[in-house]
Amino acid sequence: MQENNRTEIATLGEFGLIKHLTENIELKNSSTLYGIGDDAAVLSYPDKQVLVTTDLLMEGVHFDLTYTPLKHLGYKSAMVNISDIYAMNGIPKQITVSLAISKRFCVEDMEEFYAGLKLACKLHHVDIIGGDTTSSLTGLAISITCIGEAEKDQIVYRNGAHETDLICVTGDLGAAYMGLQLLEREKSVFQGQKEINPDFSGKEYLLERQLKPEARGDIIEKLQKAGVRPTAMMDISDGLSSELMHICTQSNVGCRIYEERIPLDYQTAVMAEELNMNVTTCALNGGEDYELLFTVPIANHEKIAEIDGIHIIGHITNPELGTALITRDGQEFELKAQGWNPLQKN
Amino acid sequence: MQENNRTEIATLGEFGLIKHLTENIELKNSSTLYGIGDDAAVLSYPDKQVLVTTDLLMEGVHFDLTYTPLKHLGYKSAMVNISDIYAMNGIPKQITVSLAISKRFCVEDMEEFYAGLKLACKLHHVDIIGGDTTSSLTGLAISITCIGEAEKDQIVYRNGAHETDLICVTGDLGAAYMGLQLLEREKSVFQGQKEINPDFSGKEYLLERQLKPEARGDIIEKLQKAGVRPTAMMDISDGLSSELMHICTQSNVGCRIYEERIPLDYQTAVMAEELNMNVTTCALNGGEDYELLFTVPIANHEKIAEIDGIHIIGHITNPELGTALITRDGQEFELKAQGWNPLQKN
Repeated sequence: MQENNRTEIATLGEFGLIKHLTENIELKNSSTLYGIGDDAAVLSYPDKQVLVTTDLLMEGVHFDLTYTPLKHLGYKSAMVNISDIYAMNGIPKQITVSLAISKRFCVEDMEEFYAGLKLACKLHHVDIIGGDTTSSLTGLAISITCIGEAEKDQIVYRNGAHETDLICVTGDLGAAYMGLQLLEREKSVFQGQKEINPDFSGKEYLLERQLKPEARGDIIEKLQKAGVRPTAMMDISDGLSSELMHICTQSNVGCRIYEERIPLDYQTAVMAEELNMNVTTCALNGGEDYELLFTVPIANHEKIAEIDGIHIIGHITNPELGTALITRDGQEFELKAQGWNPLQKN
Repeated sequence: MQENNRTEIATLGEFGLIKHLTENIELKNSSTLYGIGDDAAVLSYPDKQVLVTTDLLMEGVHFDLTYTPLKHLGYKSAMVNISDIYAMNGIPKQITVSLAISKRFCVEDMEEFYAGLKLACKLHHVDIIGGDTTSSLTGLAISITCIGEAEKDQIVYRNGAHETDLICVTGDLGAAYMGLQLLEREKSVFQGQKEINPDFSGKEYLLERQLKPEARGDIIEKLQKAGVRPTAMMDISDGLSSELMHICTQSNVGCRIYEERIPLDYQTAVMAEELNMNVTTCALNGGEDYELLFTVPIANHEKIAEIDGIHIIGHITNPELGTALITRDGQEFELKAQGWNPLQKN
């Protein structure tokens, strides 16, 4: 939060603030006919099916402003919704952004938030078409709805996995969770101090994964170019275990994944050791990686193997075999969904 | 909030709660292909244009749970978004619902909220297609996105009003604001007492207008049947003055409205007198009426006069004449937007 050059939001009011933040927004997609400025935005999707996803992010639950710069928060808020559209094998096209802000925020804070939001949207060719800006008595609340498109026969649901399908994940897992652990540790070390300058050298990747996740539109593009349509897909927001169990339940299948195949970054492993945590557990249950988890017919094996950034971690089985993790030493465990669940008992 | 039969939300967790609240939801619109249960909902709008509107409602800012039953809150949350779609001359079709809830809520509370939400959606043939349910450290936050459809040449924006157009409003104004004043007064009278049983007899209409607003889809239907397409339209959420000034600014026109023409209910007038307030000021600036404000070509005068529930309150002028209110005694005042603005200085 800036202390100098602080412009109180009250000097602009609701309409003034919205105008200030959105006046340079250009609409670039042909499906966007009218954006901000009326009771509703107007879109046109004559030839495609329309995908709609939404997320509500609450301060103190989903983000901590002690260590999350507002620009990163804006970026991440957009990105997690964009990621949901890719997870349906769709292309994101529009977002609406609603913010409830308390008095401690100034106009410059909101400019930072919007700078991050706009950057994420620009990268993925998404138009900002509307929203709501209001006040909050307590923390910051962010609600984003993302709209995307897909060809009718190209949409991938969670329920299409079949026996013998290969289970694939993109990128590497657990780093975002390690980044969060690192930030939380430094926060408690520096608690009460005004100038926080922790040393994160050698751990930049973990921070980036937590603060600046990237939706995997590149993979969706590569799969399409290779002519591969996944049978089931979702993005990993709550952790590999939890998401894989969603696919298995909804597809009525079992799975078998191999610990040694789970992609890990070197920094994730080092940090896990430093924190005395099991790195596989972090990768399975960490969440917030926003990588894609999908299944493909085994006939696609060669095509998948040729695409950079995709890892085959196991295969789909019949449902009687359950959801199994095979450890490095050959032991078999049942997967459990221990992913992040904000409404569960601790 | 119920005290007996209280089921803690933690016993269900996020996915359990969503499943419990949404398992009986049926999808009835042909444009809804897939609802709750995947990364995104799937819609199809091959022949219509798509309207998207969104609202974020925060406890303590937009609603007070001391006197707002959760069922009414659910109803109103859906209704205010449905109203925005009608305000574009569209037909609402789908909503997504995101909730952030704190520990003081139980499963039965959320059932109440959803009961109201479902009732509003049923009345307007709207499908509930998705959302997000998460936790909040403080108050309740509600984010709703409503999606609707309209024929390409039927959409009505705020910017189409022309000189000599008639200015129309539906229903009556100021009652929702009077209802709020009444509830706030009784709240302060009963502050600290456990059993609150205020006497609202004779003022039921005001409470209903505040707690259970109705989106005017009936008017949209009647206008269409009469072959009248408004030139500009919006719904009255922040107050007649504020909304009329939006239309004038965006259409680059002026207006002239007549105090004696502003529709008022008897209870509104009585309550205003009781509170020693000017009833016209309440009707101009009260907000939350969710009535429609629109302009039509003067040639439509007869058609409009035949439709029940529509009142002609003035006409559009050239912009040099400004935005004028003519009082009962013939004086002319400039309209000011003193409507509700959550981010403005007090």
